[in-house]
Amino acid sequence: MHFTEPLVLQSGASIANYTLVYETYGELNADRSNAVLICHALNASHHVAGLYEGDPRSTGWWDNMVGPGKAVDTDRFFVIGVNNLGSCFGSTGPMNTNPETGKPYGADFPVLTVEDWVNAQARLADVLGIEKFAAVMGGSLGGMQALAWSMQYPDRVRHAVVIASTARLSAQNIAFNDVARQAILSDPDFHGGDFYAYGVVPKNGLRVARMIGHITYLSNDDMSEKFGRELRSGEYKFGYGVEFEIESYLHYQGEKFSAYFDANTYLLITRALDYFDPAAQYGGDLDKALAGTRAQYLLVSFTTDWRFSPECSRAIVRSLISNGRQVTYAEIDAPHGHDAFLLDDERYHEVVRAYYERIWHEIGKDGRS
Amino acid sequence: MHFTEPLVLQSGASIANYTLVYETYGELNADRSNAVLICHALNASHHVAGLYEGDPRSTGWWDNMVGPGKAVDTDRFFVIGVNNLGSCFGSTGPMNTNPETGKPYGADFPVLTVEDWVNAQARLADVLGIEKFAAVMGGSLGGMQALAWSMQYPDRVRHAVVIASTARLSAQNIAFNDVARQAILSDPDFHGGDFYAYGVVPKNGLRVARMIGHITYLSNDDMSEKFGRELRSGEYKFGYGVEFEIESYLHYQGEKFSAYFDANTYLLITRALDYFDPAAQYGGDLDKALAGTRAQYLLVSFTTDWRFSPECSRAIVRSLISNGRQVTYAEIDAPHGHDAFLLDDERYHEVVRAYYERIWHEIGKDGRS
Repeated sequence: MHFTEPLVLQSGASIANYTLVYETYGELNADRSNAVLICHALNASHHVAGLYEGDPRSTGWWDNMVGPGKAVDTDRFFVIGVNNLGSCFGSTGPMNTNPETGKPYGADFPVLTVEDWVNAQARLADVLGIEKFAAVMGGSLGGMQALAWSMQYPDRVRHAVVIASTARLSAQNIAFNDVARQAILSDPDFHGGDFYAYGVVPKNGLRVARMIGHITYLSNDDMSEKFGRELRSGEYKFGYGVEFEIESYLHYQGEKFSAYFDANTYLLITRALDYFDPAAQYGGDLDKALAGTRAQYLLVSFTTDWRFSPECSRAIVRSLISNGRQVTYAEIDAPHGHDAFLLDDERYHEVVRAYYERIWHEIGKDGRS
Repeated sequence: MHFTEPLVLQSGASIANYTLVYETYGELNADRSNAVLICHALNASHHVAGLYEGDPRSTGWWDNMVGPGKAVDTDRFFVIGVNNLGSCFGSTGPMNTNPETGKPYGADFPVLTVEDWVNAQARLADVLGIEKFAAVMGGSLGGMQALAWSMQYPDRVRHAVVIASTARLSAQNIAFNDVARQAILSDPDFHGGDFYAYGVVPKNGLRVARMIGHITYLSNDDMSEKFGRELRSGEYKFGYGVEFEIESYLHYQGEKFSAYFDANTYLLITRALDYFDPAAQYGGDLDKALAGTRAQYLLVSFTTDWRFSPECSRAIVRSLISNGRQVTYAEIDAPHGHDAFLLDDERYHEVVRAYYERIWHEIGKDGRS
């Protein structure tokens, strides 16, 4: 979808015109009440579910959650996945041509916030004719967007489904983002963000950034169980090459990531994470920040998630309850750390399934009334 | 102290001749029974306590613990601090001339292990005429050395004082070390370890490595309390420069570190950490690994240490008790994470003080008998 009306951003800058790539699953019903918006996290995209024809490895990033008969049942709901502005999977981002200069945006691409993304998504909803979503849903950074939707557009969100998320990053969260950014910024191949012109990418910086990220996505116990101190060759080599299985895993993840992800997008998205703090303008009072909300909420957290711990979700739950909102909260005892929100955990999926069952009946009732 | 007899290393390599820099505090008593060896962690040195004349900023790294009237009382004990082989504070290391080539060792400096360090320290003790230490003591990597001393030289260690340490790194610990090493190895200024010849240092790699380290040394809560989401200028700048106080702190620490620490030493020491696993040769059975020990032990851990958590210390305590060793264990409720072992916490210092009081009386009694 192309947009030609400038989008004014939280920073004061604006984007003159831009494209948002999106995918839809299922059918929008006659009264347009069954639309679900899925918001993505750092490295995901609009491709939430399903496969592209002829590409058996193209499974969507939340395919275990979204599809016919799944927890978010596309036989019932019209699901929309949208690639965020500034990302690198088709929506306008730093690698695209800046109409003002005729060159890739690079370092000139404006810094975006979660709130900006929500505004851009709202315009897409306008064009699609969706006045009110049955649900806006996301995990991690996607959960921040779902939460922000319920604050920025309280009348357009029936339910907000906020998974493994937080109302603001801690100093430690920001610190990890900062180190990852420094690895990219200090890579000589970054060229101040204008590496496109040099025909290179800051591969080493991206590798290190992704490796740091991965450590924070997994739990200590899960990493111990999966990799422990296993050696690739069974004995020490007394050198600095790959020896432990965990090193091999991280290098593989880093390599893979550096081959497809845009470095400027990485900076942009981690900064959006850092900045998100809706309570800030209320002196840090989350109760006040959530006072204008009208949605109902499902929050889910995972016991071993040390990136956005259950306490982060509980803080949101407490503030929502203080405001008299209807909240369902599930703290899932899962070993997989932050990554658990993407994995196929039965209890977790049953909670989401039951919640969407409820949304479905609610829509039906309202439809009949 | 110069050594000319080759030291055979665990890798099979050997160092033909080498220097160990050391400092001593207090007086060795007549029966040579009051010597205490302090082993250092990653970035510390032989300079444990006190100030150098004319340099008021030269305070030793464990000055709050070691000195006249302090927990490790140098009016009673003869304390030795030694810079480990391969480090960069005076003992032979990668930046020194390789006698075989006439050039700095660089990438050719052999990979060392905790056990190698202990062997090198034992030779220093031989020359100093110390047959048995009243105590060998260290925190973190230093604690590993104290533990290893009690295994490699059971008759030469009366007490081992093992603080904020572990019997082996977890996959997550190794992962953090790996990312730090990758940041250094991929810095173009590293030149495969031979950067000395190019008149450069891999500053960016060292900065990132140190920043990652710092995150793991502090607790999440402590970081939140100290830095929170404080902004340097009070408002978002919408860019990728330093905005949050935590970023400023990490950058400062990274800069400082990259100006004085050797990149090859960083690789070497983190690898020694990775490799330490005395139970490995006993099929992972720590009880068996500790069966030959004869020392008495003090172990201390800190509740918010997520690098080497209390559980790591408890595992050692359990194995020592299984072997009938006398063990004192204190789990200190401290907010400062792994760094707590270096800080001036009253309860922690009182535990160490009481323990050294006991050592002191024990030595006196044996002396009289």
